[in-house]
Amino acid sequence: MIDRKMRTLDQDLKVLTDKVTEMGRVCETMLIDALDSLSRSDPELARATISLDKRLDVLQREIEEICVQVIARRQPVSGDLREIVSTMRIASDLERVGDLAKNIAKRTVSISAVRSLPPGFDEIKRKGELAVAQIRDSLDAYIRRDEDRAEAVWLRNTTIEAEDEVVSHALISSMIKNPRNITTSTQLLFSSKNLDHVVDHAVNIAESVHYMVTGEMFPLERPKAHRVSM
Amino acid sequence: MIDRKMRTLDQDLKVLTDKVTEMGRVCETMLIDALDSLSRSDPELARATISLDKRLDVLQREIEEICVQVIARRQPVSGDLREIVSTMRIASDLERVGDLAKNIAKRTVSISAVRSLPPGFDEIKRKGELAVAQIRDSLDAYIRRDEDRAEAVWLRNTTIEAEDEVVSHALISSMIKNPRNITTSTQLLFSSKNLDHVVDHAVNIAESVHYMVTGEMFPLERPKAHRVSM
Repeated sequence: MIDRKMRTLDQDLKVLTDKVTEMGRVCETMLIDALDSLSRSDPELARATISLDKRLDVLQREIEEICVQVIARRQPVSGDLREIVSTMRIASDLERVGDLAKNIAKRTVSISAVRSLPPGFDEIKRKGELAVAQIRDSLDAYIRRDEDRAEAVWLRNTTIEAEDEVVSHALISSMIKNPRNITTSTQLLFSSKNLDHVVDHAVNIAESVHYMVTGEMFPLERPKAHRVSM
Repeated sequence: MIDRKMRTLDQDLKVLTDKVTEMGRVCETMLIDALDSLSRSDPELARATISLDKRLDVLQREIEEICVQVIARRQPVSGDLREIVSTMRIASDLERVGDLAKNIAKRTVSISAVRSLPPGFDEIKRKGELAVAQIRDSLDAYIRRDEDRAEAVWLRNTTIEAEDEVVSHALISSMIKNPRNITTSTQLLFSSKNLDHVVDHAVNIAESVHYMVTGEMFPLERPKAHRVSM
């Protein structure tokens, strides 16, 4: 009897892992496609990216519903309970990542008539690659329940912060030098900020994985530089 | 025996409500002070605002720990379980609101040497007031467990979306007209976006309150216009 109850809880947890993994894959696709659409000025790809976001909203709701049901029915404790709570948190972070990718794609649509992107775009692309890598690695850490991988994502944060200053500086300089770049550069600045938030969510996911596996939280202070000054 | 268990669960829920309420108050203070510091170019007030954020981080962790303990020890179901899950979500939204207020305050510090703020600032101030009102009302809905108030916050979203276009337009125009405004206007644009996100979190809180009280979710589509085009 206990054994069957355990198996069923395991099955529930498996369903949750599969749904979170699917969310992670959708997020990765959305981010890659949003950046591609931006670099190729491809509004069609941007629109396709935007349409993917609905799937994430649905998945997040399903995950939350299952989590609440599982807690109510199976009354999990310790590791299992941490897993469920972390799953809810991770799903919420991934849903936000989808929103951010959608946002970048919407910006692409709004500036797709511009033929050449102003200076600063290459830096955004590089930052985008870092953001995708952080999301992928945090998801990997989740799938493997690997706290070392989670910690690596958490520690890598500083590198990405440094990238941020470079991008903002390049874009603002391009606006000052050539006011015709203002509208496009502003959209790129926002896209760049969106990528920062993607990275924040990757770090959140890493924190949730670490808590899930070890029962411990990372220190409150993240290893990061101050971000706002430009 | 059952009665004592119930009372103790109620006491736990009371502690959680008090902590969330404290988070809400800190957020409100931070938002109001961040906007004040921006309008008066007051870096001291901005720094004081930034320092408040730590309290939110601590409170959020405490809330999460208590929630996990309460689930594990008291195995709440239905309404109580919804209350705990919603509390975790709301704490996470309020922690983000604090980050956003801190962000606005940091921008104030970085532009506090500028004597006169460019056109568009009045619109930001008005938007800030709307954002503060939405946070306050969503917290009120939470404290009173009032789904009608929660729904009002959710429905008011469209009004605020309309405000967004006005602000972005004013700031971008001011940059194009006078490139010397670029650095300041960019910081204000980001502050304005931060306020949009504050409003999003207020709507999230309203959703959580509605779910907590009724067991039902709002529709996935929020009543809002598209936000990105400028």
